[in-house]
Amino acid sequence: MNQMKPTHSGYFLGKSVVALAASLREGSVTSVELTQAALDSIERLNPTLNAFVQVDAPIALAQACKADELLAQGQDLGPLHGIPVAVKDNIDTFDYITTYGSAHFEGFKPERDALCVQRVRLAGAIIVGKTLTHEFAYGPTGDRSLQGAARNPWDARCMTGGSSAGSAAAVASGIVPLALGTDTGGSIRIPSGLCGAVGFKPSYGSVPLDGVFPLSSSLDHVGPIANCIEGARLLFEVLSGRVCAPAAPEPRPLRVGWITSGSFGPVDAQVEQQFYQAAQQLFGNALQEVEDLASQAAGMKDTLLMLQRAEAYDVHAERMQQAAQLFEAEVRERLELSQEVRGWQYIRAQAAQQQYHAHMAQLFERYDFLVSPTVPITAPVVDAREVRVGEQNIDVRAAVLSYTSAWNLTGLPAISLPVGQVKGLPVGLQVIAAAGRDDRLLQVMGDLYSHLPL
Amino acid sequence: MNQMKPTHSGYFLGKSVVALAASLREGSVTSVELTQAALDSIERLNPTLNAFVQVDAPIALAQACKADELLAQGQDLGPLHGIPVAVKDNIDTFDYITTYGSAHFEGFKPERDALCVQRVRLAGAIIVGKTLTHEFAYGPTGDRSLQGAARNPWDARCMTGGSSAGSAAAVASGIVPLALGTDTGGSIRIPSGLCGAVGFKPSYGSVPLDGVFPLSSSLDHVGPIANCIEGARLLFEVLSGRVCAPAAPEPRPLRVGWITSGSFGPVDAQVEQQFYQAAQQLFGNALQEVEDLASQAAGMKDTLLMLQRAEAYDVHAERMQQAAQLFEAEVRERLELSQEVRGWQYIRAQAAQQQYHAHMAQLFERYDFLVSPTVPITAPVVDAREVRVGEQNIDVRAAVLSYTSAWNLTGLPAISLPVGQVKGLPVGLQVIAAAGRDDRLLQVMGDLYSHLPL
Repeated sequence: MNQMKPTHSGYFLGKSVVALAASLREGSVTSVELTQAALDSIERLNPTLNAFVQVDAPIALAQACKADELLAQGQDLGPLHGIPVAVKDNIDTFDYITTYGSAHFEGFKPERDALCVQRVRLAGAIIVGKTLTHEFAYGPTGDRSLQGAARNPWDARCMTGGSSAGSAAAVASGIVPLALGTDTGGSIRIPSGLCGAVGFKPSYGSVPLDGVFPLSSSLDHVGPIANCIEGARLLFEVLSGRVCAPAAPEPRPLRVGWITSGSFGPVDAQVEQQFYQAAQQLFGNALQEVEDLASQAAGMKDTLLMLQRAEAYDVHAERMQQAAQLFEAEVRERLELSQEVRGWQYIRAQAAQQQYHAHMAQLFERYDFLVSPTVPITAPVVDAREVRVGEQNIDVRAAVLSYTSAWNLTGLPAISLPVGQVKGLPVGLQVIAAAGRDDRLLQVMGDLYSHLPL
Repeated sequence: MNQMKPTHSGYFLGKSVVALAASLREGSVTSVELTQAALDSIERLNPTLNAFVQVDAPIALAQACKADELLAQGQDLGPLHGIPVAVKDNIDTFDYITTYGSAHFEGFKPERDALCVQRVRLAGAIIVGKTLTHEFAYGPTGDRSLQGAARNPWDARCMTGGSSAGSAAAVASGIVPLALGTDTGGSIRIPSGLCGAVGFKPSYGSVPLDGVFPLSSSLDHVGPIANCIEGARLLFEVLSGRVCAPAAPEPRPLRVGWITSGSFGPVDAQVEQQFYQAAQQLFGNALQEVEDLASQAAGMKDTLLMLQRAEAYDVHAERMQQAAQLFEAEVRERLELSQEVRGWQYIRAQAAQQQYHAHMAQLFERYDFLVSPTVPITAPVVDAREVRVGEQNIDVRAAVLSYTSAWNLTGLPAISLPVGQVKGLPVGLQVIAAAGRDDRLLQVMGDLYSHLPL
């Protein structure tokens, strides 16, 4: 999909799930071979990328054996049957240790699979390991966890972004074609954008959260990271337990709102240029500037922060009181701040969230999609906390979240697509749709993106 | 209903709505006469009781004239047609000034009626005035408001309890047969118990709160205060916009859980004796002791406090920031405390409330009703903040709330019935039913209470 290849690349780079599924059914490859290829890629690349935090070859190969047997018996569980998938380490798996990226859960083995993992297994996919998450998914940089920092496949000195750091690195490098991520402020889309994968945050509530370690219950989402839109769609169908509606003819030309550069914070000029060029190629004349979001941006960010902080502290109060030293320092600092949110502020944030929902419903009467850069900068180096954009030094964590978090607050489906590079690092384009229009977003973008001359 | 009469008594003492409705239809009395009788009683008693804070004879008499005309034309709006009703001053009325008991709203005239007031008017009732509320309904003593303290009809040195202080005093003294109250921790039942009226807090959500000044949205209720159960039932039907289901034969003998004395806090020995004697007379062998609520009491109180504080501060944040001096000192102190509730504590209180709901649903599989004293003491003198119970000095505000607030947290219907006096001051008996069983509670208690030899 991208002309250029990441520096660190594995077996599945450029291999779509659809092509792999065909090969499996033709008999030209087996699930055991695909799983072994993933394991080999892990062995080769993981010392550099630190994308996987738990791998267990016998567990993975046993699943693959079973998948091959079933296929041989004519039992076809669908397009993911036999395909290696990686699972973010804040999602429970009964067979792999699940640490949530935290020393609090070192060596922890959940009793059962998360519901979304159950669905992935029932669809025949092979879980080849658990991927690094920023500690408790509470950070957008992917460089603070029990297992350290994940590293960007395009330049291992750079961060992946987070919190679904390992899943994005694993897919973007081609170690696996698909991975599960979670997204509370951008945690699927940010690392997908910075690493050059397709990352999809579905509508709020469309994928069950049972067995996913909570960060902020009113903002949490589970979704796919994939090496193509079709892969993301197939995994989303499995995760949500329903088949996407077939493509319907569009009643009129698309109306695409281009979110004015700067509305949600400063954007690097080269990133903006790369984004805008791709948006022009994708949408042409359908693109119209949306000016009125800038006035909402600060309020939306504040509202999201209030909700996220209060809900995150609710989850971690006892750990903060009894074993605060086990948290990574930066995460602990965020939780200390989180404790300060007042009850009345939380109540107001809940009310404001409802108003933003209503505002977005109105906005999407005028537009089919909104587009923006996914992240306004390219991947900074690991551990960087300030970065220069134009004439300004800006906070890395605020910057990487700036264009994604509004769609967690409002629960809208949003996808990040790789649209080229700036100085050898990926740039992502984010497309947002109205609530519940996940299917259409995936279909229309699948069609348009396939024609993008990258 | 009570053998003894309050010291300060008006025209409607002992006159039931049913009897009044019959007299109106026989033509032996007119609504104008009834309304004038209420106005005369106000003129005579209100200088002592301070139950009414807004009265406007021309407004009231004009409504009464209209009611008489309609009846004369054969347009009968139902059992409340032509009956004088008082409305607590935290409920909006378009024609009477509505102060919410606060200097912040001195002279304030709402644009429209609260929905519950609209319903009362459509049922033909005559609104004769607004009754004193503890400032913003945020206090259970009824002695702190823009208009000072309401006074107990049995002994004007004593408090009425609150926050529906004036409504309870107006009904218990016989100034009006019916009044509207609100109840967030006991604000209908406490003054009804202390003044000797029937006070009914319906199931959460059964009466709309539109146009009622909020105290705590997850605990607020509107309900009737009346001089008999039948009156409470008729006003509840109007407030809730539906007719109670007709009495059904009981499938088996009643099972009534007597909440162990002391479970929710100390009870005065004479109050307990009076309560227990009435409970025995009402329920006889159906009465069984419920021992397992004591272990829940503290948790329920804490949960309610968290919800109430956070929600109350949300309502008043700007007033506290900009004009804190306008609050009565004790109310301001409560709001200052309320600001401190943390977001995560509020989230936990919401979750705990759900658990208490579930726990009560289970408990009411074993019992049809629970009974307790409404208030564990008789009315203290106005402004008292400590009172001696047995060997202990206890906080008046905590004491008067102690047996009522759990049923706001759990949203269960609860009624307070006068069951005699201790040293010349009323004692109330509280009966609680399962969620949504309002109709049955009113019917069964209406039947049993009519046989109580008071």
